[in-house]
Amino acid sequence: MSNHLFKGIISYPITPFNAEDGGVDIKTLGRLIDRLIEDGSHAIAPLGSTGESAYLNVDEWYEVAEASVAQVAKRVPVVVGISDLTTQNAVRRAKFAETVGADAVMVLPISYWKLSEREIFRHYAAICEAISIPVMVYNNPATSGIDMTPELIVRMVKEIDNVTMVKESSGDIQRMHRLFHLSNGEIPFYNGSNPLALEAFAAGATGWCTAAPNLIPEWTLRLYEASEAGDLKQAREVFYKQLPLLQFILKGGLPTTIKAGLKLQGFEAGAPRKPLLPLDSAGQNELAAMLKQLHD
Amino acid sequence: MSNHLFKGIISYPITPFNAEDGGVDIKTLGRLIDRLIEDGSHAIAPLGSTGESAYLNVDEWYEVAEASVAQVAKRVPVVVGISDLTTQNAVRRAKFAETVGADAVMVLPISYWKLSEREIFRHYAAICEAISIPVMVYNNPATSGIDMTPELIVRMVKEIDNVTMVKESSGDIQRMHRLFHLSNGEIPFYNGSNPLALEAFAAGATGWCTAAPNLIPEWTLRLYEASEAGDLKQAREVFYKQLPLLQFILKGGLPTTIKAGLKLQGFEAGAPRKPLLPLDSAGQNELAAMLKQLHD
Amino acid sequence: MSNHLFKGIISYPITPFNAEDGGVDIKTLGRLIDRLIEDGSHAIAPLGSTGESAYLNVDEWYEVAEASVAQVAKRVPVVVGISDLTTQNAVRRAKFAETVGADAVMVLPISYWKLSEREIFRHYAAICEAISIPVMVYNNPATSGIDMTPELIVRMVKEIDNVTMVKESSGDIQRMHRLFHLSNGEIPFYNGSNPLALEAFAAGATGWCTAAPNLIPEWTLRLYEASEAGDLKQAREVFYKQLPLLQFILKGGLPTTIKAGLKLQGFEAGAPRKPLLPLDSAGQNELAAMLKQLHD
Amino acid sequence: MSNHLFKGIISYPITPFNAEDGGVDIKTLGRLIDRLIEDGSHAIAPLGSTGESAYLNVDEWYEVAEASVAQVAKRVPVVVGISDLTTQNAVRRAKFAETVGADAVMVLPISYWKLSEREIFRHYAAICEAISIPVMVYNNPATSGIDMTPELIVRMVKEIDNVTMVKESSGDIQRMHRLFHLSNGEIPFYNGSNPLALEAFAAGATGWCTAAPNLIPEWTLRLYEASEAGDLKQAREVFYKQLPLLQFILKGGLPTTIKAGLKLQGFEAGAPRKPLLPLDSAGQNELAAMLKQLHD
Repeated sequence: MSNHLFKGIISYPITPFNAEDGGVDIKTLGRLIDRLIEDGSHAIAPLGSTGESAYLNVDEWYEVAEASVAQVAKRVPVVVGISDLTTQNAVRRAKFAETVGADAVMVLPISYWKLSEREIFRHYAAICEAISIPVMVYNNPATSGIDMTPELIVRMVKEIDNVTMVKESSGDIQRMHRLFHLSNGEIPFYNGSNPLALEAFAAGATGWCTAAPNLIPEWTLRLYEASEAGDLKQAREVFYKQLPLLQFILKGGLPTTIKAGLKLQGFEAGAPRKPLLPLDSAGQNELAAMLKQLHD
Repeated sequence: MSNHLFKGIISYPITPFNAEDGGVDIKTLGRLIDRLIEDGSHAIAPLGSTGESAYLNVDEWYEVAEASVAQVAKRVPVVVGISDLTTQNAVRRAKFAETVGADAVMVLPISYWKLSEREIFRHYAAICEAISIPVMVYNNPATSGIDMTPELIVRMVKEIDNVTMVKESSGDIQRMHRLFHLSNGEIPFYNGSNPLALEAFAAGATGWCTAAPNLIPEWTLRLYEASEAGDLKQAREVFYKQLPLLQFILKGGLPTTIKAGLKLQGFEAGAPRKPLLPLDSAGQNELAAMLKQLHD
Repeated sequence: MSNHLFKGIISYPITPFNAEDGGVDIKTLGRLIDRLIEDGSHAIAPLGSTGESAYLNVDEWYEVAEASVAQVAKRVPVVVGISDLTTQNAVRRAKFAETVGADAVMVLPISYWKLSEREIFRHYAAICEAISIPVMVYNNPATSGIDMTPELIVRMVKEIDNVTMVKESSGDIQRMHRLFHLSNGEIPFYNGSNPLALEAFAAGATGWCTAAPNLIPEWTLRLYEASEAGDLKQAREVFYKQLPLLQFILKGGLPTTIKAGLKLQGFEAGAPRKPLLPLDSAGQNELAAMLKQLHD
Repeated sequence: MSNHLFKGIISYPITPFNAEDGGVDIKTLGRLIDRLIEDGSHAIAPLGSTGESAYLNVDEWYEVAEASVAQVAKRVPVVVGISDLTTQNAVRRAKFAETVGADAVMVLPISYWKLSEREIFRHYAAICEAISIPVMVYNNPATSGIDMTPELIVRMVKEIDNVTMVKESSGDIQRMHRLFHLSNGEIPFYNGSNPLALEAFAAGATGWCTAAPNLIPEWTLRLYEASEAGDLKQAREVFYKQLPLLQFILKGGLPTTIKAGLKLQGFEAGAPRKPLLPLDSAGQNELAAMLKQLHD
């Protein structure tokens, strides 16, 4: 596993909004990225689901992409999330990400109309023709409405230059087994489902793409390190300790819960964008109790 | 049923793109709208799913909204589709639709993150505060990722001014039964699932929101008229005749198949936007055969 | 539709158990069958789901089959339900049903292990080789664990002698459309999903297999008669009146709720067999209110 | 984990049928049980899904139960599978299993009608009142039609004496997480989903209930031993080697594929009972190739 550019804990920063007009707060974003790196993240993934990229307007998106890469400043690799309904706009964003210095892009094919495999393949191919950095295929049927089979994904890795990695967020461990099997264990896959973190590492995941390091970086690292060391008992123990929090942030929506947790930790990052609402007070109390238990 | 502003066949025009640069072809859109009205549509619904509204950029969307309402020119009522991820942008579009003269808006709450019922309610309430024309709640879990229960929908009709109609596209007839039951048959509901057209009218739907009139207007009208007349045998007969085509356009994606069908009928409306691809030649042949059979 | 042996309201009697030892109460069963026929049922279907056939031991099953056919005494046709895990036992029961005078059998392929289409086909073929009366294919994935596609069903009707009818209880109206389409409307299909009764008749169902006539025979007949007459408005009206009760008996389990309803009507038929429990008192009150409203 | 009566590899023998009349072949069953124990199984579980218990008549079931326990002769613990539609018959079988010397029973609540939680609870309670040996709750929604939540299962363990273990065959690793969480890791859970074997051990499963030892006992043991030793890399390696076979036997049906595999290994155990058919020749070739690869 050790020869991949991306491995270990790949952290999603949320996108902070300021209290005045709800615009993107680039300065606070920079502080958050610093904090994630200092806390040990092995890579940074701006403009993922957690980053509310779907809720940013076009100008904001470009601003966040550029500022994030600049802030990381090569301390760790950066993979920028690209999810746009049209191929043309996805290409445009991918080229921009490359231009400002991203190490890779993570491409989620969002659909309104169901896409055929031919349409998905061409979408990836068009993006890859336009850039030279690696592309991570991102499968997340729950948010994107598109469910790519392991067979299609492996075919794209084999036939499209630049497509070299897979992020699986379906939460179905059998998908990872299938990716492993179809590629003889050679295509690196990353887990994007928090409550599956233990089992994904057991099944051979190269990394874990997660928003949890915004709140509990040390626990995510402990799970990765125990897994890397092949120490199953320790991995299980640290996983079960953090699992209630992992389930909570997923169920409550990552931007909503992570922003609430950051505030509880004294890091003000604003509210999520409407229609998303801030975490209600019952949820805040529950989250505060979980964080306390994990930090005692 | 007869006292509703919207009833009968509510037609979705596709959005034509020109061959040169793929931009919106407003002139052809106008011709298509004229054709739909002349063919008997009882209302026009631009910027729905069929209109590829998700694939238009912001300026294009505004242009299509304004041009569509102007073209209809009060010959029939117009309901403009609004589906935007943020509440702020949905409000903006709804206000614009009202300003240019739309008779109603049809609001689909698109989600990236799952929305709670509280978030959905506030999304609708915010839109309704900003405009004075009626709002049709649009439930389409397959494309939007949000599934609103009949209970939530009926509560919104009762508690939010302007929310007065429901479009159900889940394809589950039991949802219509539940809407009928919860409102004692008083909330008008519209069917958005083509292969359910017969049964939705049987269950009391006030109208059918459909892209089929772009291709087979006379058949959709015959089904509506037989249903209105209470003539079940005739309704069944005309439904089964058109059902293969209704299934075909749904399965193949409405913009893709309707544009292909228009071209087969000599009406050039361009290709759908990538990643959507034009209908392949096997599909074109299948569609041509169906159209021939229905027009003989 | 009118030339089929089975059409209209096909009623399922429950199987009464006596209070003393929980054994089958044949005498009460006879009285119930008389009542169903006198109330207008067009056919009787003993040993269906409602008849708790799955909970009877082998001897009881044979006793109920024989007694039911004898009690009907050719006043209306009888179709006996056959659902046995092994082909050998299903054949045995089917032969017995024919011997004692059943007009047809309704065969549900119960599975523990998923059956392939080849296995299902041979199961039906083996039964049909052993008997000469018509076989109704019964598709009910929720209770049997096997979901037969319309394609398989139509193939069996075409290729296996005696297989002549289909009962669809998946609750998916599109299955009926598909059966209609694949057979050019020539294979008679029967609806086994109570809350779909209106739409199934709209779609062309030849009959409705239902336990509701145990409690509200007049309402089921009114729906059938309005549908037969092609009077959609009347059909819709009588359907919505009885729908809450249809939903209630389905959701609460047919043996449980029908037995409770019979008792409320002064007809004592005992309790269902454990693990099934009698309807609790809240349920009884709800059911009593529904029955009162329908009989006022 | 080490203080549980049942742990490690809990093997399901198939039930052999003789070629003459298809009856149970007790002598061959005895030889198979010997082979499983000699090959290292930590426990034997007759009359599970693999044992075609659903297809045995009542007398055969009793015969297999008695003979299996006698054959094991206390060399390892025995858990007898009980799945009967009625509570009365389930009690009868459980008592018999205890009488002939079973160490525990594994109870699967089969349903025809959906059971409420109250009905499921009483079913288990009635069985537990009648016997004194431990009861393993067996959740297998795909074959039984009943899906018990972890909450219900944990409540039964706490409130019903004798209910002490859980077998989870839903294939959803999150169920195991929930069982762990709700019981602070104190209720032993067993995995019944072959393709989840690695991850279930990672998540803390006490044992693996599986038919695979009929064919590849050494591989199942290696996985268990690596997991017990906490050696994640070794566990992953041996799991991926056997995974294709685990998927194959599940997909093809356990009785069908295990009997075919035994025959390929020179152990004649007859065919499964109709409607189940023997593995077709393409399947036999595929299975032979897998077995060869694992035994080279």
